[in-house]
Amino acid sequence: CEYDGPSMKTSVPGPRSQELTKQLGEIQNVGAINFFCNYEESRGNYLVDVDGNRMLDIYTQISSIPIGYNHPALLKLMTNPNNLSTLVNRPALGILPPENFPDKITESLISVAPSGMTRVQTMACGSCSNENAYKAMFIWYRNKERGHNTPSEEDLNTCMINKSPGCPDLSILSFMGGFHGRTMGTLATTHSKAIHKLDVPSFDWPIAPFPTLQYPLEEFTRENEQEEARCLEEVEDLIVKWRQKGRPVAGIVIEPIQAEGGDNHASANFFKGLRNIASKHGCAFHVDEVQTGGGTTGKFWAHEHWGMDDPADIVSFSKKLLTGGYYHKYELQADKPYRIFNTWMGDPTKNLILAEVLNVIRREHLLQEVNRSGKVLLNGLYDLQARYPGVLSRARGQGTFCAIDVCSDETRNSILLKARDKGILLGGCGDRSIRFRPALVFKEHHVHMFLNIFNDVLAQI
Amino acid sequence: CEYDGPSMKTSVPGPRSQELTKQLGEIQNVGAINFFCNYEESRGNYLVDVDGNRMLDIYTQISSIPIGYNHPALLKLMTNPNNLSTLVNRPALGILPPENFPDKITESLISVAPSGMTRVQTMACGSCSNENAYKAMFIWYRNKERGHNTPSEEDLNTCMINKSPGCPDLSILSFMGGFHGRTMGTLATTHSKAIHKLDVPSFDWPIAPFPTLQYPLEEFTRENEQEEARCLEEVEDLIVKWRQKGRPVAGIVIEPIQAEGGDNHASANFFKGLRNIASKHGCAFHVDEVQTGGGTTGKFWAHEHWGMDDPADIVSFSKKLLTGGYYHKYELQADKPYRIFNTWMGDPTKNLILAEVLNVIRREHLLQEVNRSGKVLLNGLYDLQARYPGVLSRARGQGTFCAIDVCSDETRNSILLKARDKGILLGGCGDRSIRFRPALVFKEHHVHMFLNIFNDVLAQI
Ligand code: FES
Repeated sequence: CEYDGPSMKTSVPGPRSQELTKQLGEIQNVGAINFFCNYEESRGNYLVDVDGNRMLDIYTQISSIPIGYNHPALLKLMTNPNNLSTLVNRPALGILPPENFPDKITESLISVAPSGMTRVQTMACGSCSNENAYKAMFIWYRNKERGHNTPSEEDLNTCMINKSPGCPDLSILSFMGGFHGRTMGTLATTHSKAIHKLDVPSFDWPIAPFPTLQYPLEEFTRENEQEEARCLEEVEDLIVKWRQKGRPVAGIVIEPIQAEGGDNHASANFFKGLRNIASKHGCAFHVDEVQTGGGTTGKFWAHEHWGMDDPADIVSFSKKLLTGGYYHKYELQADKPYRIFNTWMGDPTKNLILAEVLNVIRREHLLQEVNRSGKVLLNGLYDLQARYPGVLSRARGQGTFCAIDVCSDETRNSILLKARDKGILLGGCGDRSIRFRPALVFKEHHVHMFLNIFNDVLAQI
Repeated sequence: CEYDGPSMKTSVPGPRSQELTKQLGEIQNVGAINFFCNYEESRGNYLVDVDGNRMLDIYTQISSIPIGYNHPALLKLMTNPNNLSTLVNRPALGILPPENFPDKITESLISVAPSGMTRVQTMACGSCSNENAYKAMFIWYRNKERGHNTPSEEDLNTCMINKSPGCPDLSILSFMGGFHGRTMGTLATTHSKAIHKLDVPSFDWPIAPFPTLQYPLEEFTRENEQEEARCLEEVEDLIVKWRQKGRPVAGIVIEPIQAEGGDNHASANFFKGLRNIASKHGCAFHVDEVQTGGGTTGKFWAHEHWGMDDPADIVSFSKKLLTGGYYHKYELQADKPYRIFNTWMGDPTKNLILAEVLNVIRREHLLQEVNRSGKVLLNGLYDLQARYPGVLSRARGQGTFCAIDVCSDETRNSILLKARDKGILLGGCGDRSIRFRPALVFKEHHVHMFLNIFNDVLAQI
């Protein structure tokens, strides 16, 4: 039921997309619009636009489409009359959940819970998942500080007017190049591009360097170990410094692979070291799997590559998981209701789709497919960078979660546009990287198709 | 197709709800769960629980169900095969919108745009709607300050490390008793209950008193005018003080009726005065209609009761509108793409439902119904407080957006539970208020049914 290749009718955006962009421009800022889509006609790995162009999609709505467009299993799910009431009655899940909520969560999110975690809180997007994970860490930290006694009158009164001790001067330690969201709490831990942060007030929180490694990782183990050791040392220094400043670090947040910030990897040893530093200093350890989670690295969670029994205190997710939320250890559960709360607390419609997506992943052995395609993709990128050493470098990846650097920002952007006009949809990240974010149904023959066309594009540069 | 009244089989929560609460308790905090629902069997104003109890719902999922449960028009919409692709392919709206997006937005959100506003940005919930509205105000304010010149190198470098001038010391002025969300930016402007804010770091932003009026408003015009004048004066003082402190007020945020904070009303003159103060001091004026919007006050937006051509610079919404978002004046549009941005930028499924909800509101003349029911409801509450003067006081409301105070917190909670066991679902707000938040399909005969049962409950107190 999928198409057999890209098919281009116009350059992109075509005339109909341009017309619609103009129409939407009367209503909102359209500077980021790539083109308008015909989602009805899109299938599997192929995104069709309103001008009839059909593109192999290796960006998948900023990495948020798990099993391709219009998967038959999902179409069937959505026409099942038993699910109709879920679609039209959105409940306030925190107070009035539907009967099947515990079962749905058990068969979906709990069935893929990270090692050591049996509890999960649903949310609606990556930002509120992380915001609430931070709040859970702050609450946990303060409860430790006050010896689990009831908050004082002073705590209760000062918090109403945004003042310490009720609103304490605690911090979250994040990493340069990290991205965790754009609401004001998560934005204070985001450091990928200036345009995300400019003009928005922020918090005085510590920011550690993320290791800048040399690729392929296995060829530079000694150099990379040194770089990682330097960064870990800096993390410990910052924790001490911020404690002395009166802004103790309640939690550390990190992505297993920095995505928006340029697909920066680090070794399992680095993450083990970091997790130990967190424990040693009494900080919670929060692994943000919003972009890496859901199978694209070849394991369901990227942190599984670290091989740890106790990888984290909190793991947040969204995007390919369709619902947002976070797993957490029992200690990280807020001590009272309504502390972690909002009107909707997620959306049962998304839980419904997620449960079916997980069925498809198992039935179609998609993690195996990702490992197979990922190997071919990364090897293909190694070949291309050997063939075009002046243009491409630093090919890297885990599963199909791959990236490659281009000699300059301008060349990168021109490659992206040329590839698009030949029917390959890719995304950029960092200063001059190209990131590969196919769906889990991206098979070996799609990789070959991509590599052929990409080679043609590079030959023209 | 609706039921003809409540029907109670057990006390609430019944045995099945208790069992499910225990099951869910293995996965998450269940302290806020009221009971589990059978949404399939719920109809119109009646919410059915898993123990077969049928309740007249005057709380509607924290005021987020616009036209009742399982409205036939929505069931029909969701079985239309043309909409199937929208349900299974969630796009990144900011970069790759579907073909019908401009039309859907025009026929839905733009068709009910507040006076003076032609632009709207969709978001996914009340918190991200307000967070992004704040960001839009900060961006607008800083662009004014730098004379619309490009940001300096210093701006760009400092913002990456959370420091001024890139992350400036700007503030949002909010009101004591206000509620605008629970992510860290909006939480800094929320001051309704300590449990929402305790242990979460915050910003040093100014907080003005919201007028404490005497009800019925028309009987205390002189006293209320004085109180409102006092609050407006305080607002101006705070704006001056925070400018001197080096944390200028970029925007003022306020609800037309403070909802979570206890259903506190203010006069049209107060809001006019506030809007003028905002203009005079160069602050943006943001009206948060997350809870008041969507018709429940008898006009589509509560601020329409002020009778102003230019009521605000930004109006945010969510809940009954199903999608979140905010309207804004042209000046408040960020100057560049990707400044107001996230992966999903809302959800076309919700836009689809909203468009049909607006059709139903027009076709069934629901605003007229709200005005009719609201009058009967408020008069009924006046009668009851005259009959039970030791228990009830301060009945107040606009449309069906009504509230009444109870002599104490404990009595309030016991009334809520007793009413629930008799098949009436209500919510509390503030310290000791009961709030009425029926759907727009709450008709006169529902009001009479409620008043009768409520009278029985009060007779037992
Ligand atoms: S902040 Fe996540 S949906 Fe609004």
